[in-house]
Amino acid sequence: MVAHIEHRVGGHGRVASTNQLFKYTFDSMPLQRGGQLGPVTLAYETWGTLNAEGDNAILITHALTGSAHAHDVEHPDDPKVAWWNPLIGPGRPFDTSRYFVICSNILGSCYGSTGPSSIDANTGRPYGMRFPLVTIRDMVHAQRILLEHLGVRQLAAVAGGSIGGQQALEWAVAYPEMVRNVAVVAATAALTAQAVAFSEVERQAIMLDPLWQQGDYPAGQGPGAGLAIARMLAMITYQSEEGMEMRFARQAAGNTRIPAPSGSADLGGRFDVEGYLYYQGNSLVRRFDANSYLYISRAMDLYDVSEGYPSLEAALRRVRSHALFIGIRSDFLFPAARVRWLADQVKSLGGRATYVELDSPHGHDAFLKEWEQMTAALRLLEA
Amino acid sequence: MVAHIEHRVGGHGRVASTNQLFKYTFDSMPLQRGGQLGPVTLAYETWGTLNAEGDNAILITHALTGSAHAHDVEHPDDPKVAWWNPLIGPGRPFDTSRYFVICSNILGSCYGSTGPSSIDANTGRPYGMRFPLVTIRDMVHAQRILLEHLGVRQLAAVAGGSIGGQQALEWAVAYPEMVRNVAVVAATAALTAQAVAFSEVERQAIMLDPLWQQGDYPAGQGPGAGLAIARMLAMITYQSEEGMEMRFARQAAGNTRIPAPSGSADLGGRFDVEGYLYYQGNSLVRRFDANSYLYISRAMDLYDVSEGYPSLEAALRRVRSHALFIGIRSDFLFPAARVRWLADQVKSLGGRATYVELDSPHGHDAFLKEWEQMTAALRLLEA
Repeated sequence: MVAHIEHRVGGHGRVASTNQLFKYTFDSMPLQRGGQLGPVTLAYETWGTLNAEGDNAILITHALTGSAHAHDVEHPDDPKVAWWNPLIGPGRPFDTSRYFVICSNILGSCYGSTGPSSIDANTGRPYGMRFPLVTIRDMVHAQRILLEHLGVRQLAAVAGGSIGGQQALEWAVAYPEMVRNVAVVAATAALTAQAVAFSEVERQAIMLDPLWQQGDYPAGQGPGAGLAIARMLAMITYQSEEGMEMRFARQAAGNTRIPAPSGSADLGGRFDVEGYLYYQGNSLVRRFDANSYLYISRAMDLYDVSEGYPSLEAALRRVRSHALFIGIRSDFLFPAARVRWLADQVKSLGGRATYVELDSPHGHDAFLKEWEQMTAALRLLEA
Repeated sequence: MVAHIEHRVGGHGRVASTNQLFKYTFDSMPLQRGGQLGPVTLAYETWGTLNAEGDNAILITHALTGSAHAHDVEHPDDPKVAWWNPLIGPGRPFDTSRYFVICSNILGSCYGSTGPSSIDANTGRPYGMRFPLVTIRDMVHAQRILLEHLGVRQLAAVAGGSIGGQQALEWAVAYPEMVRNVAVVAATAALTAQAVAFSEVERQAIMLDPLWQQGDYPAGQGPGAGLAIARMLAMITYQSEEGMEMRFARQAAGNTRIPAPSGSADLGGRFDVEGYLYYQGNSLVRRFDANSYLYISRAMDLYDVSEGYPSLEAALRRVRSHALFIGIRSDFLFPAARVRWLADQVKSLGGRATYVELDSPHGHDAFLKEWEQMTAALRLLEA
């Protein structure tokens, strides 16, 4: 096995930044749905120091369009700079003065880890849609290989929300002996039919865009309009009727200069919520790869923690960690009742599970917004 | 004013059918947002007989992709043949042995009434996106012109669901002296920000399709993929998490031959819910015009019953009818709480309002499925 480590000086163009994006490359890995993928690179960041026993590590797992940059040491309070910033750092739930905190970009993504936009060593061209189907289990398997490379023997915790929560759950089931705590935030045993349906509409919009070209678009010239429309829909599913009503109601847009993804003219004016969604859609296009979106959203759909086990109960009975489940009252993508049900299942099977519900109008996205409630909930992780 | 009446023999190719689609054309009408439209044709069907006083008429108002064919005298029990079939007929809530029941295709649609696919008399070409913005108020105004032509002096009831419910509400406010009862089903004073947002994603998908061509597509060669994707999303919003879970859960599709709108290959299999949505999307393409979809869905978004009045209270205080509001427990497009709130407002302003909630898992679409509950609710209309 050949391993490479690359270093990049990160953070807003400052040369003296202390944020570093590392890369680890290994030869190959088998995939859950068949075949091998290799070489595989994982990009990751770390904060804090691993102890001699290799057992004070915390793995943070990110959401669909997230990256390894969960925390920024130069701007530790700004969640726009790093997505879980307020939860990571000295004295915070993921206490970098006591723990070695790691976040790696997931397999299939486009922030340094191997994904559809990576060069296929066999052809010298980007994989595009020739990239193999990767699953949550594959993502977690790749993370485990990385952790072994880093000398981590046991994880004090694995924590993440949404598809990151699916990964945390998968860790607890796939590698029960390696995890003392998991925090499964806004995630369930498997997506609902409604959530799969939204997800498929998003993918169809991407693949309808003529610039998609069956996935073989030149870098930077991908299906921007399709991806923006997908993101518009996703942003609705990450929020809630209640939250959107509080924020937008039926206000007219103040700024009507943001172009609609399709380039169409407004029909009878523009609502504020429409301008907001155009903005969000366009923003994602500048930072994310459309094929990665297809693969990762599909991995979410396909995830079922019971896959490969005789039953859901058989899968959940494997959990040895203390399992903290965090649901969100207004989440309709991963309904709180289903998160609670999962916690109850683990408990009824003899596991140690805790359920906390965030009382938030912000829908699924509350795990990226409700810092006080998230901090209080994550304090329940066992030392 | 020049009026034409055309007759068409309808119903499944049977020459002896008693279902007739009539057409009435008038010179022009002013539009709420400015300008005139003309000539204007409304296609309509009727069942039963108008009395000498002209006051036993019931107007049925249809939903977004609906048509005038609310009832079929040859197949009176099949809701697939005519959309409100089980509610219309002798002894049913809309009793054709006592009432003259009318349903007209709305302005902007493509089932015989004037809409974007109609020929613009000024250019000899289809309007396309040069069709003017039409509102719910305009649709209702056109219906009123038709009713005058038919000799209707007063309506025993106006009833409809979804955008049909918006029309019913608008009738009660715009022409209070003409309506004895309204049944506002699964409709509210105005759409929520979330509903507008879904609607805009649907339109963006249509306009992203390269076949849309700014609305100037040849008949039958429109943006089928975009319209199918729009319909997929709409079908999710017409149902509910609960209902979709009951029907689809995470079952694999039995039939994987239905093409996805974008023509893409399945990625890791196909869920039953995906195959169902492809089917629904493709079905709409065969029967509906994409530009009509844009205009009518926009009219839904823009509708606010208070527009043009000093306040919502001022608008609702105009209601003289008995107003029956029917909400649906699992509807997230027009949430039951908002339908009930509207009923409470009318009552608090001194109006006669009744609120009934359908206990259904079928979401917004329950008004097209829950025949027993709908029948019981509509019996509350006053004679």
